[in-house]
Amino acid sequence: MKLATIRNGRGTSTVRIDRDAAIELPFASVDDLLRSEDWRAAASTGGPSRAIAELDYAPVVTRPAKVLCVGLNYRSHITETGGRAPDHPTLFAKFARTLTGAYDEIVVPEAGSARVDWEAELAFVMGRALRAAGPEEAARAIAGFTVANDVSMRDWQNRTLQWLQGKAWESTTPVGPHLVTPEECGAAADLRITCEVDGELMQDARTSDLVFGPAEVAGYLSTFITLEPGDLILTGTSGGVGAARNPPVFIRSGQKVRTAIEGVGELVNPFVLSQRGS
Amino acid sequence: MKLATIRNGRGTSTVRIDRDAAIELPFASVDDLLRSEDWRAAASTGGPSRAIAELDYAPVVTRPAKVLCVGLNYRSHITETGGRAPDHPTLFAKFARTLTGAYDEIVVPEAGSARVDWEAELAFVMGRALRAAGPEEAARAIAGFTVANDVSMRDWQNRTLQWLQGKAWESTTPVGPHLVTPEECGAAADLRITCEVDGELMQDARTSDLVFGPAEVAGYLSTFITLEPGDLILTGTSGGVGAARNPPVFIRSGQKVRTAIEGVGELVNPFVLSQRGS
Repeated sequence: MKLATIRNGRGTSTVRIDRDAAIELPFASVDDLLRSEDWRAAASTGGPSRAIAELDYAPVVTRPAKVLCVGLNYRSHITETGGRAPDHPTLFAKFARTLTGAYDEIVVPEAGSARVDWEAELAFVMGRALRAAGPEEAARAIAGFTVANDVSMRDWQNRTLQWLQGKAWESTTPVGPHLVTPEECGAAADLRITCEVDGELMQDARTSDLVFGPAEVAGYLSTFITLEPGDLILTGTSGGVGAARNPPVFIRSGQKVRTAIEGVGELVNPFVLSQRGS
Repeated sequence: MKLATIRNGRGTSTVRIDRDAAIELPFASVDDLLRSEDWRAAASTGGPSRAIAELDYAPVVTRPAKVLCVGLNYRSHITETGGRAPDHPTLFAKFARTLTGAYDEIVVPEAGSARVDWEAELAFVMGRALRAAGPEEAARAIAGFTVANDVSMRDWQNRTLQWLQGKAWESTTPVGPHLVTPEECGAAADLRITCEVDGELMQDARTSDLVFGPAEVAGYLSTFITLEPGDLILTGTSGGVGAARNPPVFIRSGQKVRTAIEGVGELVNPFVLSQRGS
């Protein structure tokens, strides 16, 4: 099953993407649907049909209670940043307002960053509450997978020891277009994930290279906080980010970033950077 | 004006604390009130009266869209951790579920931490939306001040470079009991803030020692994200935390931590630590 949150004239609504049409469901967003009693049953009902080509995608979840991110989680990325495989996942947070749609323009304001970088990531969304769970229970609580780009303002990220201020800019983290349920994508265990900037391949990895997989990350998080339906978790990025290149490369205004995971979906985001020199 | 979120049999509600009684207001929480059109007018109305001594305090805000924290923000605390005054605030996040009430027991589960530490902090709550604002506009957007303790699991905090996993444990950050509007406490510009563990004074500082004051922090955050009514911001802690003592001291099960800011309020939280050896 594939689900999406789309914009309509009045706000957002939820659709199920069938083979050749999008079926409207009576929920304001995918996270709203996931908070309902039996979301799989609720998502399987009939409804008005819309043409897929006309959909305007909102972030796949619009008001998650939590957005959590893993850093340094691909063996290849750890190597390029000079580290060794960690004992524990590195965790930080974003906010619901940081998210944006799969095809949205990403605008960085004038007071912003001159070092805007890409980070293609597999993300997942919780379908039920989870606390103090092992990886098997955690795997069953994952509603599905989606594509994200943890767009990072490297200058702000490195102003202090804590990364948040480089990671939480308003409407700069595209996520979507679809939530793809685990049975449709092999629980995303071994999929190709890529990032292209203006057609140039910058990241190319497989999700099997993750040090901590989705279920393991969800279980770890559940040790200290209850994960809730609609919570969004980004699993970290692979090698090939701009800041780690020699010389470093950053996104220029007008460039288009394509982030794709085979069988899950793709994001295509044009960047508008107001800052001089970027 | 002093406001509080209290627990009733069915959930939570909001009260205004007058000199000798608590007046019930028709809002589920202080953050719910702050999201209303003219919250000061709405908070000034009459309503059923309750005895102050009988109030059961919930976290002063229950569902903030964001909980943001500043680290290393007292000159005295920076000195004890070996640093120098920073150019930018260090920022990290917590979650609404991390919060707990002013007099609640703080329970750390068995899989938890053996190094539970205290961090007395001045916190503030936003009363209106704020984006790309200077400090004067930011000061006007602050609804009021409250007391928080950024209880930290030092072992988890230091597992990786990012502090979040030591800072975001469920129901471990007491915040309250009241939201005190700026005119009632001199905008919290120079107040004594203390933390006692079983009556022993561990932290004793003044809010005038903050490197980045509340309005400055709010303005800085608004550079990259819209602050919203109900958002909670913790401003950082002073010297005297347990981990920085020689030898280090941590909270033991059964101990009571009192966190107070003169003219703003106090928290008193007994700790229940399940882990052996703690």
